[in-house]
This record gives sequence, structure tokens and C-alpha cells, in this order.
Amino acid sequence: MNTLAKSGVAWLISPSLAAAMRRRMRVAGFATSSSSSSIPNWEGGVSMVQGASRGIGLEFVRQLLEKNEKGYVVATCRNPKEAKSLIDLKNSFSERLFIHKLDVTDETTIEESAESVRERYGSLNLLINAAGILSIPGVLQPETTLSKVEKSSLMLAYEVNAVGPVLMMKHMWPLLKAGGGSGTKREVAVVANISARVGSIGDNRLGGWHSYRASKTALNQLTRNVSVELGRRKDPVVCILLHPGTVDTDLSRPFQRNVPEGKLFTKEYSVQKLLHIINNAKRQDNGKFFAWDGQEIPW
Amino acid sequence: MNTLAKSGVAWLISPSLAAAMRRRMRVAGFATSSSSSSIPNWEGGVSMVQGASRGIGLEFVRQLLEKNEKGYVVATCRNPKEAKSLIDLKNSFSERLFIHKLDVTDETTIEESAESVRERYGSLNLLINAAGILSIPGVLQPETTLSKVEKSSLMLAYEVNAVGPVLMMKHMWPLLKAGGGSGTKREVAVVANISARVGSIGDNRLGGWHSYRASKTALNQLTRNVSVELGRRKDPVVCILLHPGTVDTDLSRPFQRNVPEGKLFTKEYSVQKLLHIINNAKRQDNGKFFAWDGQEIPW
Repeated sequence: MNTLAKSGVAWLISPSLAAAMRRRMRVAGFATSSSSSSIPNWEGGVSMVQGASRGIGLEFVRQLLEKNEKGYVVATCRNPKEAKSLIDLKNSFSERLFIHKLDVTDETTIEESAESVRERYGSLNLLINAAGILSIPGVLQPETTLSKVEKSSLMLAYEVNAVGPVLMMKHMWPLLKAGGGSGTKREVAVVANISARVGSIGDNRLGGWHSYRASKTALNQLTRNVSVELGRRKDPVVCILLHPGTVDTDLSRPFQRNVPEGKLFTKEYSVQKLLHIINNAKRQDNGKFFAWDGQEIPW
Repeated sequence: MNTLAKSGVAWLISPSLAAAMRRRMRVAGFATSSSSSSIPNWEGGVSMVQGASRGIGLEFVRQLLEKNEKGYVVATCRNPKEAKSLIDLKNSFSERLFIHKLDVTDETTIEESAESVRERYGSLNLLINAAGILSIPGVLQPETTLSKVEKSSLMLAYEVNAVGPVLMMKHMWPLLKAGGGSGTKREVAVVANISARVGSIGDNRLGGWHSYRASKTALNQLTRNVSVELGRRKDPVVCILLHPGTVDTDLSRPFQRNVPEGKLFTKEYSVQKLLHIINNAKRQDNGKFFAWDGQEIPW
């Protein structure tokens, strides 16, 4: 049994019945909200944020919940029980936040999350892949020179930063197709993969950070590749890549001394800018790579 | 003990002594050959071809041996004892061909090969990373749709096609720096990594082949990344990326029916074109991605 408060209607029903009802209501236009321009983009929609326990992912969850009074957010992380900030948000937003255990290196947990979302909501309107690794003391260190490149680092960064998001897209694809823009003001569902400017090959002038760079470059290609297929199939889903700028998070902390003044963003600022791009993403943006300020980044 | 026939001089000396002598002779200008324009580019130089048992790699070995009367070639492959074509070449070219066991997924074998080259020749002038995987029945199948993407395929293609070449560059770098253009008509040593046009993100219009594409895109970034460092250090080494076209090899065989007429190249033709690019690679080409016809390919 599962309690769902949706569009102001309180349900006490089984998850699968809730999903079925929700699908039917959408078909009937009951839950759509295109009539009022003041209603937020994702109103009534279901968003999933992967990598939500901290950093940019956590901030996405917070802003999606705060800015969309009726929107639902599925927040995933590896250890929900230790995700203190997410648990705090759960206390504030109750049924509008659903926390699910997911480790992108363990495909089974991705499948389980997809199944939970399918049972609970029936579809997805937004997927943000936010998890990423750059440095882990004793395990992964951004390389300053070719002689320090380690196979284990290359493989691990690829597994988390590139393979993880594409497996997420694979398993959430049916839910995103089912969702499209239903329940929102939008025409299409959106997949936003958090990439990084250092993943650009054309813009690479400094070198270094081999494992991280290559993983983000591969993520760019994989996302572009999926966008081509989605476009050809005319699925109501667009994929975009986002560079958040250098944001004051645990990920960037060891490297912040090299950031020029005024170029280290707060999480709040970066995510606000990224959500602006996500909220305005249209079919013609499918497969593009945007910086936080909306500028396209070369491959 | 090891016999080396070099610049017409037969040596019966230990490998390490041969290397030391060769280094000294280079310093004295004894082994350089810039005086005659008729002498092939790599005359007297040492080239390494990784992935040399068949396909494009094998053809590189053949043409390097045939076109440079005095050049040395180190051919590496996973199973030298089963590399019949390489063994045939060994029978023809004797001491000018050195076959060494190397599996890019086993870094120890890369280190062992580097050590053998160091002892035998002291340096390298050319490194061609030719090994690549696209399909292995029952293991790796080029994906036609997102729903068929498998983690194991993504990881394996990355390990062989992207991580392999960067580990090769890592371990051969000291030898390439030591070599530079010494013993050849050239100013710089060259690293040529065999990439593929489908690794281009900007040129991706068909989608599919997720594992292969992403691995080649990552190879492009890794090679570019290394080229930036080599350039900054002013090492006498340039790295380039090459698209061989669609070549009639085991790799392309399952997919040849989709190739337009006249666009399926013989190995001989493709390698001839690629060697033309390699032979003319200059410092300003460092970090560039060329098609077989010399045209640059967008990232």
C-alpha cells in the first residue's frame, strides 16, 4: 500500500493501481496543466535525479521540489540511509520526494529503481544524471601527466561517468517515452546528463585529468548517440548535456585554488541556471551540449 | 646475445650494449640520414606496430618493412606463435622484424615490450596503435539500439580501444622521446592511433554502435590530451589520430554490405594513404584527427 498525494488528490491505493489511474487520467487530460502560464514547467511531473545525496544532484532535488509545488522527485543515491540532507528534504516534502537506492556501477539497482518508478508513477518526465567522480583519495587521482595514468582510474571513471548514465537512459527510456510531456506544460520529456567542459576535445588546451576528461567525452558521444536514435524514432524525449561551471562542491574542492575569481559558483546559482536550460529544452535542442549560461560547447 | 644488422653493419653484441652504442652513434650523427632525399622517411628508424597479427596492423608492418630498406619494425600481438602472417614476414625480413607478445588489456605485457625495445634498440621513432575491437561473436555486438547496450560491451571496447593505446603511449613515451627523429629523415617521432570516423561526435548522424563509438571518441580525447602535454614539454614527438576508411578486414567484414560501392578499401590502399600522412606528420599536426585522404575530421 502506498499513499500518493497528487494534483491535490490524496490516494490510498496500491502503487500499480496508482500508476494505472495516473496513466488514464493523463490520457483524459485530467492532469495536464497547459492552461496557465504561471504554473511551473514540471508541475505534476515526475523527475528523477541520479546522484542526489550531495553536490549538484542534491541541489537539483531541492530546487525541483521547491519550484514545482506539485511535482514529484525520485532521488537516487548509493546509501539512502546515510543521505542526511535527502532525509531532511524528505521530512519537508513528504510524499513528493521518493528516495531510492541506486548505484550506477550495479545495473541491478538501476533496473530495480526503474521498476519502482514504473509501479509508483508509471512514467518519468525528467531524468538528471548528476553522479560523477573526479578524485577519490587513494583510488582515483586526476592525472597531471601521462606517466601517472593508471588503468584502474581510467576504467573506474568510465564506469561511473559514462557507462552509468547510458545504463540509466537504457532502463528509464520506456518510462520517459511513456511520460513525454504528460502532466507538465511541456511537449517532451528531458534527459539532462551532467558533463563538463573538460570533456570537450576541441576546447582541450591544458591536458591532464585523462580519466575524467575521457569519461566525459565518452558521455558526450553516448548521449549524442542516444539523441540520434530518439530523434529518429520521434520519441517524446530529448537528451541534453550540461556543463555546470566550476561549482563549490565536494567534487571540485581539491581543485578550487585554480579557479579564477568570480568563476566558482554556488550550487544554488549553477543549478538555477541549469534548470533554466532544462525547462526550456525543446526538440531542436536534442543532442546538444550547453554550458550553464546557455552557450553551446564544441565537441 | 643478439644479432643486429643496422645501417649495413652487422653486430653480434648484447642487446643493452647495442642500445648504448646506437644512442652514442646517434649523438655523433653517425646514424642520421638527412642528406639524401631519396632515402625513405623511416630509414634506420625503429617502428612499433601494436595489433600487428592481421588487418591494418599487419599491413603496416609489411609496408614499413618493404618501403624502408633499413628500418626496423617491432610487431606486437597477443599470440605470436599463432601469427602465421607475421611469421612469414619474419622469414623474409629476418632481423629487421622483431615480434613481441603484447596484449593491451594486460599492462605487464606492455611494460615488458617497452623493456625489450629499450634493450634491443634504445628508442622508438614511430608507434602505431592498430588493435581495435568492434564485434566478437557472443561477447561484443555493435548495438543497433539503446535497449541492446550492455555494460560488459561498453567496458571491453573501452579497455581495448581507448585504454590500451593510452597505456601504450605511457610506456613507450620515454622511448619515443629518446628516439625523436634520430636515425630517420624526420624531426620528430610519431604516434599514430587508429581511430574511426564513427568516433566523431559532430559527425554522428546514424547513432548505434554505442560501445565502439564511445571508445573511439575517448581515444580521440586521450590522444589529444597527450598531444597537449607533449607539445607543452616540447618533446620531439607528435601524436595523430587516423581514420582508415572502411577497409576490407576481419573487423569490418560483418558490416560490409552497408558500404557504398567504391568505399571499401583494400588494406594495401588504406595503409598506403595512412603512411603518407604519417610520413608527412609535422609538429603542427600534433593532436589532429585525419581521414585516410588527409582531410581533418571534426571532433
